[in-house]
Amino acid sequence: MRLWETLDVRELLSVGNRLRVALERVRLPDGRVIDDYLQLTTPSFVVIVAQRPDGRLLCERQYKHGPRKIVLTLPAGTIDPGEEPFSTAKRELLEETGYVSDEWQPLSNRIMYANAGGGVTYAFLARGCRKVAEPNSGDLEEIVIELKTPDELMRACLAGEMPLVSDAAALLPALLAIGTLAESPTALASRA
Amino acid sequence: MRLWETLDVRELLSVGNRLRVALERVRLPDGRVIDDYLQLTTPSFVVIVAQRPDGRLLCERQYKHGPRKIVLTLPAGTIDPGEEPFSTAKRELLEETGYVSDEWQPLSNRIMYANAGGGVTYAFLARGCRKVAEPNSGDLEEIVIELKTPDELMRACLAGEMPLVSDAAALLPALLAIGTLAESPTALASRA
Repeated sequence: MRLWETLDVRELLSVGNRLRVALERVRLPDGRVIDDYLQLTTPSFVVIVAQRPDGRLLCERQYKHGPRKIVLTLPAGTIDPGEEPFSTAKRELLEETGYVSDEWQPLSNRIMYANAGGGVTYAFLARGCRKVAEPNSGDLEEIVIELKTPDELMRACLAGEMPLVSDAAALLPALLAIGTLAESPTALASRA
Repeated sequence: MRLWETLDVRELLSVGNRLRVALERVRLPDGRVIDDYLQLTTPSFVVIVAQRPDGRLLCERQYKHGPRKIVLTLPAGTIDPGEEPFSTAKRELLEETGYVSDEWQPLSNRIMYANAGGGVTYAFLARGCRKVAEPNSGDLEEIVIELKTPDELMRACLAGEMPLVSDAAALLPALLAIGTLAESPTALASRA
């Protein structure tokens, strides 16, 4: 199995750092050439699963214009040009929630679109979070912080109340890391 | 907490059914007006967690041009205009793997981008899958089917070998539904 070869890139649109759309001419391993393979470049972003010493997780209730709904989300934010994802995570957690942590752990890097690219979402776990300031995100959206136990948050996610794909993807490694989820005894037995 | 009001939509780019980019003029609840709020419309798609009677899950090894890598993915595909997501799921499972199922269950609907919109990814679980045909996806990518136990697939996902955000998001409800993951005894005890 071999990679595709990009022969040519034709930019269709560029909107500052927010979006770049291009059509690529690509050669497939079998020799076929596709003239207009669509590629999107969007900013990469971080998602943070932040836990307080009492076990509760920091969630945000806010309006999101993508789905046109008031939803539950995890703290998250766009990586500025040249910024390291871990720096973004620390910055966004403080800005959006007023919390800091000394116990950070990277969870996963995920690609937004298989075919078209998009950006990468970097998930982090921050434990032992403590509040040191008032939130001051500078975001357009009003953010209301809600505290949920891992169990409550998992149920909210499964019920569709936390509808962003990047939040759901971050919860799988996070809930395993903090011990809310584990392989079931049946699954372990079948593996033995 | 109130919704935003869209005052005006200015289309920047349209690429068939594949992409629409627009700038919206929106009014926030506090009265501020933002002139250039970016919105993307991309096709919605399905992701399928398909399990055989022997417990193993149908995975695909394929090159994906978004990440420019050969990756492990779940069967998935774009919803055609006017098509119901469940019809897409049945069609794509058959086309990409040659398998059918009589035991379908919807898992979750997830939004791709919180701010910009994007599409929706609909995840389904198909159990008791049986092979009735040879794969014939018509996709540009060569697809090699791999069978993995739920445990193996979860480890591959956690290790970054299955890097698509929509796959990782589908695994959380799927592994709970098929009993690979469960709330840990500690988590259950702390809830009691």
